[in-house]
Amino acid sequence: MITSSEYRRRLSKMRRNVYMNGELIDRDDPRLEGGVNRLAKTYDLVAAPEFKEYEDILTATSHLTGEKINRFCHIHRSVADLLAKQKMTRLACHQVGGCIDRCMGIDAINANSVVSYEADQAYGTEYHKRFENWLRDFQENDRMGCCAQTDVKGNRPRRPHEQVDPDLYLRVVETKSDGVVIRGAKVHNSVAPVVEEIVVIPTRRLTKEEGEWAISCAVPADAEGVKLIVSAARQPISKRLGMPGPYVGADSLTVFDDVFVPWERVFLNGEYELGGRVALLFALFHRHSYTGCKPALTDVLTGATALMAECNGIEKQAHVREKLAEMICTSELCYGTGIAAAINAEKSSSGTYIPDIVYCNVSRRHAGVNIYHEFDILADIAGGMPATLPLEGDWLNPETRPFMEKYMMRNPEVPIEDIHRAFRWVQAISCSEAAGVAQYAGVHGGGSPRMEQIAIMASYDVEKTKNIAKRLAGIPVKEKYSFDRFGVMPGER
Amino acid sequence: MITSSEYRRRLSKMRRNVYMNGELIDRDDPRLEGGVNRLAKTYDLVAAPEFKEYEDILTATSHLTGEKINRFCHIHRSVADLLAKQKMTRLACHQVGGCIDRCMGIDAINANSVVSYEADQAYGTEYHKRFENWLRDFQENDRMGCCAQTDVKGNRPRRPHEQVDPDLYLRVVETKSDGVVIRGAKVHNSVAPVVEEIVVIPTRRLTKEEGEWAISCAVPADAEGVKLIVSAARQPISKRLGMPGPYVGADSLTVFDDVFVPWERVFLNGEYELGGRVALLFALFHRHSYTGCKPALTDVLTGATALMAECNGIEKQAHVREKLAEMICTSELCYGTGIAAAINAEKSSSGTYIPDIVYCNVSRRHAGVNIYHEFDILADIAGGMPATLPLEGDWLNPETRPFMEKYMMRNPEVPIEDIHRAFRWVQAISCSEAAGVAQYAGVHGGGSPRMEQIAIMASYDVEKTKNIAKRLAGIPVKEKYSFDRFGVMPGER
Amino acid sequence: MITSSEYRRRLSKMRRNVYMNGELIDRDDPRLEGGVNRLAKTYDLVAAPEFKEYEDILTATSHLTGEKINRFCHIHRSVADLLAKQKMTRLACHQVGGCIDRCMGIDAINANSVVSYEADQAYGTEYHKRFENWLRDFQENDRMGCCAQTDVKGNRPRRPHEQVDPDLYLRVVETKSDGVVIRGAKVHNSVAPVVEEIVVIPTRRLTKEEGEWAISCAVPADAEGVKLIVSAARQPISKRLGMPGPYVGADSLTVFDDVFVPWERVFLNGEYELGGRVALLFALFHRHSYTGCKPALTDVLTGATALMAECNGIEKQAHVREKLAEMICTSELCYGTGIAAAINAEKSSSGTYIPDIVYCNVSRRHAGVNIYHEFDILADIAGGMPATLPLEGDWLNPETRPFMEKYMMRNPEVPIEDIHRAFRWVQAISCSEAAGVAQYAGVHGGGSPRMEQIAIMASYDVEKTKNIAKRLAGIPVKEKYSFDRFGVMPGER
Amino acid sequence: MITSSEYRRRLSKMRRNVYMNGELIDRDDPRLEGGVNRLAKTYDLVAAPEFKEYEDILTATSHLTGEKINRFCHIHRSVADLLAKQKMTRLACHQVGGCIDRCMGIDAINANSVVSYEADQAYGTEYHKRFENWLRDFQENDRMGCCAQTDVKGNRPRRPHEQVDPDLYLRVVETKSDGVVIRGAKVHNSVAPVVEEIVVIPTRRLTKEEGEWAISCAVPADAEGVKLIVSAARQPISKRLGMPGPYVGADSLTVFDDVFVPWERVFLNGEYELGGRVALLFALFHRHSYTGCKPALTDVLTGATALMAECNGIEKQAHVREKLAEMICTSELCYGTGIAAAINAEKSSSGTYIPDIVYCNVSRRHAGVNIYHEFDILADIAGGMPATLPLEGDWLNPETRPFMEKYMMRNPEVPIEDIHRAFRWVQAISCSEAAGVAQYAGVHGGGSPRMEQIAIMASYDVEKTKNIAKRLAGIPVKEKYSFDRFGVMPGER
Repeated sequence: MITSSEYRRRLSKMRRNVYMNGELIDRDDPRLEGGVNRLAKTYDLVAAPEFKEYEDILTATSHLTGEKINRFCHIHRSVADLLAKQKMTRLACHQVGGCIDRCMGIDAINANSVVSYEADQAYGTEYHKRFENWLRDFQENDRMGCCAQTDVKGNRPRRPHEQVDPDLYLRVVETKSDGVVIRGAKVHNSVAPVVEEIVVIPTRRLTKEEGEWAISCAVPADAEGVKLIVSAARQPISKRLGMPGPYVGADSLTVFDDVFVPWERVFLNGEYELGGRVALLFALFHRHSYTGCKPALTDVLTGATALMAECNGIEKQAHVREKLAEMICTSELCYGTGIAAAINAEKSSSGTYIPDIVYCNVSRRHAGVNIYHEFDILADIAGGMPATLPLEGDWLNPETRPFMEKYMMRNPEVPIEDIHRAFRWVQAISCSEAAGVAQYAGVHGGGSPRMEQIAIMASYDVEKTKNIAKRLAGIPVKEKYSFDRFGVMPGER
Repeated sequence: MITSSEYRRRLSKMRRNVYMNGELIDRDDPRLEGGVNRLAKTYDLVAAPEFKEYEDILTATSHLTGEKINRFCHIHRSVADLLAKQKMTRLACHQVGGCIDRCMGIDAINANSVVSYEADQAYGTEYHKRFENWLRDFQENDRMGCCAQTDVKGNRPRRPHEQVDPDLYLRVVETKSDGVVIRGAKVHNSVAPVVEEIVVIPTRRLTKEEGEWAISCAVPADAEGVKLIVSAARQPISKRLGMPGPYVGADSLTVFDDVFVPWERVFLNGEYELGGRVALLFALFHRHSYTGCKPALTDVLTGATALMAECNGIEKQAHVREKLAEMICTSELCYGTGIAAAINAEKSSSGTYIPDIVYCNVSRRHAGVNIYHEFDILADIAGGMPATLPLEGDWLNPETRPFMEKYMMRNPEVPIEDIHRAFRWVQAISCSEAAGVAQYAGVHGGGSPRMEQIAIMASYDVEKTKNIAKRLAGIPVKEKYSFDRFGVMPGER
Repeated sequence: MITSSEYRRRLSKMRRNVYMNGELIDRDDPRLEGGVNRLAKTYDLVAAPEFKEYEDILTATSHLTGEKINRFCHIHRSVADLLAKQKMTRLACHQVGGCIDRCMGIDAINANSVVSYEADQAYGTEYHKRFENWLRDFQENDRMGCCAQTDVKGNRPRRPHEQVDPDLYLRVVETKSDGVVIRGAKVHNSVAPVVEEIVVIPTRRLTKEEGEWAISCAVPADAEGVKLIVSAARQPISKRLGMPGPYVGADSLTVFDDVFVPWERVFLNGEYELGGRVALLFALFHRHSYTGCKPALTDVLTGATALMAECNGIEKQAHVREKLAEMICTSELCYGTGIAAAINAEKSSSGTYIPDIVYCNVSRRHAGVNIYHEFDILADIAGGMPATLPLEGDWLNPETRPFMEKYMMRNPEVPIEDIHRAFRWVQAISCSEAAGVAQYAGVHGGGSPRMEQIAIMASYDVEKTKNIAKRLAGIPVKEKYSFDRFGVMPGER
Repeated sequence: MITSSEYRRRLSKMRRNVYMNGELIDRDDPRLEGGVNRLAKTYDLVAAPEFKEYEDILTATSHLTGEKINRFCHIHRSVADLLAKQKMTRLACHQVGGCIDRCMGIDAINANSVVSYEADQAYGTEYHKRFENWLRDFQENDRMGCCAQTDVKGNRPRRPHEQVDPDLYLRVVETKSDGVVIRGAKVHNSVAPVVEEIVVIPTRRLTKEEGEWAISCAVPADAEGVKLIVSAARQPISKRLGMPGPYVGADSLTVFDDVFVPWERVFLNGEYELGGRVALLFALFHRHSYTGCKPALTDVLTGATALMAECNGIEKQAHVREKLAEMICTSELCYGTGIAAAINAEKSSSGTYIPDIVYCNVSRRHAGVNIYHEFDILADIAGGMPATLPLEGDWLNPETRPFMEKYMMRNPEVPIEDIHRAFRWVQAISCSEAAGVAQYAGVHGGGSPRMEQIAIMASYDVEKTKNIAKRLAGIPVKEKYSFDRFGVMPGER
């Protein structure tokens, strides 16, 4: 396992292919600092003595090498692995006040571990071996990876092969003796500018005309032809006041302008039936990651709300306690259902454990429909100050500082410095560009509530509930009553 | 284990102490039939060949005798027991379209199993041995029990010992050589008119002035001095149309008019510190039962909604599918969190497993805040027919039947008999006295959302979330970061 | 204007054509009493000295005769008429604790007053004169009328002329020299069993193949061929305890089994373009009536909630006050928007004032989406007692009465008789068949929220809001900015 | 009436007393441009030929001089004035995509017009004459004013005279022969840095110990001793793409560091009973302004949502139409209830019309509880693009522009320039600092939902609704039924 310094060093050495606001920039550009800080934390946690007690959570034993590795590089080989991944995610997100961002990588490798194996079984291919070779390097070098899934999709009601421009879904445009050439672009490509490896997978189910779009592979983030056009939200974190961070994302419109990928990095190519499988499995693993990260974000917002209540001296008020309880319910319903998803996981033929689809989706949907409401509660309890707080320069200006100290005093038991810091931080997380990005991400990251609704309706046996109703109504039902889906005990599957 | 016939036979032989609408009635009075039918199902399920595959769920092995017993008489001795109880509850509730009602008994015995043991350890008493002796008979004879917890409470802002009438909380009024005499009344005493055993426990925490109210004991439902003033909702279930049931509750204002309880039936007496413990533990076990029954009620309402959509020919409409998905999310969030409560259970000193308090409460609260909304969705999709459907007599009247058949036709693929049955049953469950009772029970049964909110705020460490916020805001925090509460793996505790 | 005794006398003399639960019954059958009581109140209010100050609200001056008439028989000739109708509706509903039910009549006559005039202008017919002649009798004799609109609709995705059975939408089956013969059935036909006149109108827009379904006319409720198959919810109102009422609806599946209607009672016949117009106008007037009745129902539920809080001694608690405020917001948003609908009314060519379509629909929709939530709040504050209250006979039984008095005591400032009455009445309105009907009616009466959504999207100029957005985004817009729709001042139109 | 150039010119000449981020800045500093742009629009609209048809809305006739004035300087002398003010507000807000900001001034002068008169009547003072003299200048010179109400409040549970520092509520510290000296600070003081006149009023009801805090007066914004410590949100409006604006607020912590106010500018001084009156009346007028501005903000968000749906090619989808309908319901419930507030206005002794308190408060509360949900809907329909859109520089960079054009294509009927502009603008309004400020302002501006709840419970006669319930329950009620509060017709009061 490497240190965060090594991670930063590697980034600084990569080829310059990141565009931002009209410039070509280096990966150690200060505007990408927020994204680097988040990911760096995943190395720091493993090394930190004060997190020693969480070692079993933060690390795992590779099933390939038997070595201890960062759990973010691990393939889930048991229910316990899934539970540990969920817990690690919540813990890590606590440290950065939001997304830890390395989930993209772990979810992408787990999805590929399953499908590359299934492809080999079905088609006699060699994808799984290639994948494991690549993964061995990934684990041994503790590499940072992301997942490029979402195609730009063009005219939404049309399928990939029906678009006027076939590149609107990334595809293979040429097959060579030693690999393939891919073209297209992936959007909302989180953390792509600050990783070494981009795992490319399809965005949706594919039909038999769509073999050229059925491509899974791993591409170095600075490979020839890869161009990252990136954005990163501003978060007014005050270093002068000693706030850690900033911790914000870095997103990319990642253009693959005829990128060559050698065979040893190709994990699916043309098997259109499995294109949708890997797309859906990534979404499923990623929604399970949400059962860890989303409760953490709620924890941060709950803590922020409690902190605002303390500053305002209204902690004991009935309505404040009700709202805190409501937030706790959101985090624990999501987390609890994530536990159920792990407990009811299914072992795939590759040996990778796949969490329960219904529980992952109801959890992610619940988080998604509540995110704006949580910001609403925080704003409600904070009052208007995070929106109208004078700027940091006025706090530091000796001419205005005395007025700010005199007139910002609230709960007399909280020092004015802490009141000021608290409001400035709450402004940073709830009344800033970064807050807007967190809200959008809360709705859409990992698939919007609408996508989860579709997944639920596709996988849930509504007919069974209808049969319960029919029996009670005295309407004849052919099928025998059964109830085999949920509440499976550990080891039963 | 006994049959439902034996259960009914025993009821018919009990002393007459049930009052209803001004009369003293027998326990086989037709107005109590709905309550008897529900409980009888718990015997029938165990005996039914078509439920053979659920044997491990429906039965358990007594830790006292090693014999196979109905799981409703069992003490939870493992995480697997709690998961099985939850699953049994959902399964059984499916068969009766709502509460299975026998949970009162199982939750009462589990609470007493813990506290009688703790009392003995703390005070050198013999409660646990007495309890186990009583329980042995209870299990061997497959007895039906209920729990009398909720005191009538009089002037709500006052404590028990502050009431003008001390009997407004049930209490010991006399201690004899061979037992105690209790006086008071328990309200909302579900199924009391159709059980053999009433387990009496306190309703709340008690102070040191309140030893006389700290009484747990088991009383035969027809003991001298017990008077049951009962109600039972009407549900227009059509037997002529072949609908099973009716399945409705029977509630009681149970008066203990100086009832003598011999020592061997007394499990706590005067240890006020433990009075609250047994009260809260019953509530906790009961809320875990809700993680099974409430999803089942949602399943029934989901099935009813899907059935209405089928009758109306609108099953494929986008808004219908959205609403079904929303209902599924409610049931599975509650059930999934119930699984998490079991997985994170704690083993008490008595060996009984206690489910996690936060997960039980967030699950029960979520059910409670959604119940009316679920009826709303059903009404929305059903249309007005359940409210204006002509009466059964008009369906059977040859003069009006042809008009009803001609004019109630809807989806041409559903026979008119089934359409009629479907609407009549939906009327029975959503537009009837029984529906009203189900709504009130959905809010208040096992404690209203407000009670869960209080339990959550009392047990959740909000300060920890505040510390997460403070660290991110750069405000000094003394305590070390910790995250030990949730996501515990099986066996870890 | 007549008295309620005269109204009852007239009912008792009508031809027997009401079927209930397999019997042919009289209109003074006790099971219809709840419906008669409601409507009778509209006569009593006008005559009551204690309502003298509301005379201008409760009565109006006929534009046909210049005589003072019950406002329920009046055609709205001004904004003030619409405001008075709205206020009268709320006031009258207060007296019966829910629907006053006579709105069906007034809304039907207003819709016909507009369309019969428009038809004459367009087609040179004589409908309006006929209508006014019929109306003159209706006003002079203070007749009770209802509206038969909702067809049974058969296979919902199909239009009237596409049904396998053309009678699934009511239609003209024969034209004679002196009138027409109609066949079909109207469902959810509120108060039909307790009125003299049934005004029949189409249920939806019609196409040119559908002239035979474009029929508006007035039919005596006991005309030859009319058969009423009726239902009426039970409401456990205690007359022995001095509660007024019962006040519940009476609904009918009204069969028109080849009913002859003479020309003088036909107000539209075959002009399919206007069939939809009268359907939508009735819905619009009726939704404006909802801006009066729905706030009244909320007032009743608000009062019931406040009464429960008083009985339970928790009136001052923060959460109780929040919930009461929430209910008040619902009633006043609906009522206030109804005022706006009146203020922005449009004068039709016939001189009848038509309320604003957007305001009527947003008001009705808001009521519809909140109704179950209001019952939820009531249940929440009431506690479980309305669901488990022993029956009235036990209160009257001297053996059990003392126990009920002793153990139902709560707020010591409220006499036990009032506590008992309060809970019994809350049971009657929230935990009974009648409550179920009120819930369904709250969703579907006058058109469900979904229907209002459709009406809103059909009438609102979303493009204008999009143009506001485009201008701000710097996207060229051809149309000039305009804002002419809302906020019109009285007299401006 | 003046032009916006004159307004800008006046600002540029004011004394330098604005602090921002550690500097002392001029009022034409670019960072204040967004606030100036909003207010300037109120001058431009009056002058614009294309708004000529709204002249009666945008201007009024002064009751002091009979001259035509900008309506923002007008005292409401009729129901029609209130309706016109509401309409003007919505119209003006449409042009700037949010708050028009000049409402602070008009609401402050209307409140003072009422209370200065009442004070004179009660105490024989001369406030009203002074006020009218000052107002004459204000109207004739078309001055821009704001309202400094919200005190910093210190330890919230304590009253003004109980604070450790009495200056935590602004107060009179010295009375001189020619005026008073005031000290304190006002927070959330919107637009203070870009106005000429600051109207100072109390923040809450006052007790008899609190005469020194009962001060209303007008202070030039650059008066000696006034110090404005200001903030202004960034909004990434692209001028290079031709977007108008930016339009964002400028807020101030306005310090009154011993400011002298001459008698002719003092409108209340020491009459503590009327201190609360002016505070509450300003809030009331301001909440009525919200019935105009909040619907406008919803119109902007509705339009933005419709625009996003168009870009994404999903305008016809059922769920999109449902969500648009929901937004329309929010705007029209708020606006319609604002109309009702105007129609039910009361004429004060001064001749100023005061809108109905209940309708103003239910409208404002409804807006406040929905604001975050509206942003949620916009994010839902927009997809993630507003959060991850590359920066403007990349669109202008010829190296990356072709990729952005190729890969951002969506609905083929919308040109790529418009798609790009649409997403960039939606980012500016929903995923930016300015968006955060709009969310906080949507909750707290003019008083949070909690404040409206308190106002509603203080002014609504809940007892009357309880009496309706009691009569129906058969519980004796002393008071006669009455229903005199709402639905008053124009002219009736």
